[in-house]
Amino acid sequence: MIRFYNGKVLRFSPDMRITDEEVWTDGKVISYVGPVRDDMPVFERQIDLKGDLLMPGFKNAHTHTAMTFLRSMADGMELQSWLKKIVWPREAKLTDDAVYALTKLGIMEYLSSGITASFDMYVHNEAYAKANVDAGFRTVICSGLNNFDADPENIEREYLRFNHYHELVSYMLGIHAEYTTSLDRMEYLSDLAAKYQAPCFTHLCETKEEAEGCIKRYGMSAPLLLDKIGFYRYGGGGFHCCYLTEEDIRYFADHNLWAVTCPASNLKLASGIAPVEQMRKAGVKLAIGTDGASSNNALDMFREMYLVTALQKIYEEDASACPASEVLKMACVNGARAIGLPDCDDISAGKLADITVINLRRPNMRPLNNLTANLVYAGSKENVRLTMVNGKILYENGEFFIGEDPDEIYCAAEEFVRSLEA
Amino acid sequence: MIRFYNGKVLRFSPDMRITDEEVWTDGKVISYVGPVRDDMPVFERQIDLKGDLLMPGFKNAHTHTAMTFLRSMADGMELQSWLKKIVWPREAKLTDDAVYALTKLGIMEYLSSGITASFDMYVHNEAYAKANVDAGFRTVICSGLNNFDADPENIEREYLRFNHYHELVSYMLGIHAEYTTSLDRMEYLSDLAAKYQAPCFTHLCETKEEAEGCIKRYGMSAPLLLDKIGFYRYGGGGFHCCYLTEEDIRYFADHNLWAVTCPASNLKLASGIAPVEQMRKAGVKLAIGTDGASSNNALDMFREMYLVTALQKIYEEDASACPASEVLKMACVNGARAIGLPDCDDISAGKLADITVINLRRPNMRPLNNLTANLVYAGSKENVRLTMVNGKILYENGEFFIGEDPDEIYCAAEEFVRSLEA
Repeated sequence: MIRFYNGKVLRFSPDMRITDEEVWTDGKVISYVGPVRDDMPVFERQIDLKGDLLMPGFKNAHTHTAMTFLRSMADGMELQSWLKKIVWPREAKLTDDAVYALTKLGIMEYLSSGITASFDMYVHNEAYAKANVDAGFRTVICSGLNNFDADPENIEREYLRFNHYHELVSYMLGIHAEYTTSLDRMEYLSDLAAKYQAPCFTHLCETKEEAEGCIKRYGMSAPLLLDKIGFYRYGGGGFHCCYLTEEDIRYFADHNLWAVTCPASNLKLASGIAPVEQMRKAGVKLAIGTDGASSNNALDMFREMYLVTALQKIYEEDASACPASEVLKMACVNGARAIGLPDCDDISAGKLADITVINLRRPNMRPLNNLTANLVYAGSKENVRLTMVNGKILYENGEFFIGEDPDEIYCAAEEFVRSLEA
Repeated sequence: MIRFYNGKVLRFSPDMRITDEEVWTDGKVISYVGPVRDDMPVFERQIDLKGDLLMPGFKNAHTHTAMTFLRSMADGMELQSWLKKIVWPREAKLTDDAVYALTKLGIMEYLSSGITASFDMYVHNEAYAKANVDAGFRTVICSGLNNFDADPENIEREYLRFNHYHELVSYMLGIHAEYTTSLDRMEYLSDLAAKYQAPCFTHLCETKEEAEGCIKRYGMSAPLLLDKIGFYRYGGGGFHCCYLTEEDIRYFADHNLWAVTCPASNLKLASGIAPVEQMRKAGVKLAIGTDGASSNNALDMFREMYLVTALQKIYEEDASACPASEVLKMACVNGARAIGLPDCDDISAGKLADITVINLRRPNMRPLNNLTANLVYAGSKENVRLTMVNGKILYENGEFFIGEDPDEIYCAAEEFVRSLEA
């Protein structure tokens, strides 16, 4: 058992609030949240928070973790040429070993940003899952069916395998995107979703070209096309959602679908700004993703949170758009629920111990006028003091405890990059 | 003498490049940059860079440092109502002691972000200057003449005083803004500029309302009005510059004026996006500022650098807009030159030792595909290992060496905030 005391706790349910409680964890769960007690058990460690803030870890609701190898490899390109000229030829050279190392590199970056779970769509899922389990990190794999996949039926095998692989790993259904997946294959996935009564996800309306292309190809927007083929019968959602129409937004709200916004990636690839505030006001459920390190180029929830709100202010020409508290909910609670991890969404007894501790004894957190606003408008990786996943401390005071030396992970990543140039 | 060895050095002149040289400092200057030498002097300290990157410190070319007390105090308001309802009534209660503490808080945040000098326009300049000198930080004070000042002639007294006050402090002429300063007073400042052959600065075309207001008031844009009254006879520039017209941009380029962009503040107050790429292509000299912590809410050059380039990509609908190397130049070299510190603009022998060391042994800096792009697109405060100003290490491994305990500074800042509510 671990005891966190002498700090503040950010809780979301039933109402968002900051308390002066202490938090105990027992194995992988939070066992107690409340005032100091007389009947204290024996703890294996007692952590003096020194006034710092304990909160649920951030959930990265859309990413391609192992794309760390492409960080800063080709900047200044728009999405389609970047995919075709840079990303896809290099991804073809990925090996299991490379994905294993590159995933661990991404996990390190998540931990340093207080992120405790990811929703990942990529390749070499076997190596990817192993890297997460070995590091102790929680992940939900999303299938990314597209026209390049040799064997669509592999998705069902993966669905069954990775949902019974390890407590830190689960698997959800998805296609890469409408524009990379034939109607046949989209229908195949929808049938699979029906069979397992499972939600489905996809990259959706990320660029204007893509959104317009779907209308040309099918005579309707991608969300309505997906609706028509039953893709969303059991829920799910879309990544990016920069170019949802008003009708699409109503559809998303009416069907309880998740829109996962990735503002940094959308800026950097010049894709645009998603209508987050419009979606929020229409009742669409929102979560936040970093996308891959290749298009961001960081895996940093503080950057994303700032951008989610700051961009809406100019997009709506309204400085009150997207309040900080709403953004924090997206990053913590909504993220967890979007990716099928409702037990990781809050700090309360019985929830899984996926926690981060924010150092408030740093100049960017002072004065303590408004902690919520400080986190969203001024927070940075320098404030992440500790990150715990499933009850284990994986990051503390800048050091990683993920079963492998960081230098070895850096070396393996660099080695793979050098092999690409050979 | 201090020796930095076993690392990389980012140099700007004559060409931007990254070398494997070592760097020695002697007192307040850089005394040697080059390969390892046989004739080594006795050093007071030898710092193993362990492969990390030594570079010129960032220059914060527009800020209001002591506004730290307003951080997260009122978010979600546009510029004018925020100034009138929140900022100005509280600023009226500022004391010398408060400004001293709040300035030190801001300086801590600068140091933690690798910033080594600021260009500050605010109030209580005596206390402000003392806080900088006591902390060992370099600052250029800019006068902010406006209609609320009781005695415009105080500016000349301050000009003479603070330009002979301490080697870390200098003073430049400026007005707050066209919309807060009568024509008489703008002309008064222009005459002062003529007398001392000095450049002049001002908040300029920050909001659409302000830019349009000037045309209503004077029948011409603010830059052209300022030109007419001789404000820019000896150079200078404008802060924000979100709404410069094409004609204004040509005027800025032709007259070698500086445009200081503050992207985070412009987003958060819903002011807009400055046409940075358009200015850059027209030959306007550009530098970067954080603005105050009240409207940002961070004082973080990594955030600003990312936003400078990322926002231009959507503003221009061109992912190649504003390359990372150009942004780094703005933050380091241009910043120094804009604010009258040409001796702080680079790492080379004879320059002042205003330096930061970037920790590359962090996951967000790996792989080392492109260091320049990594810094701009993925860098964060977690990467700042050391910040040195005028040859003195003021920040290292998260600790501050500024002559006062951080907790005392936090306490004094919180105390002032509490006094506002009383």
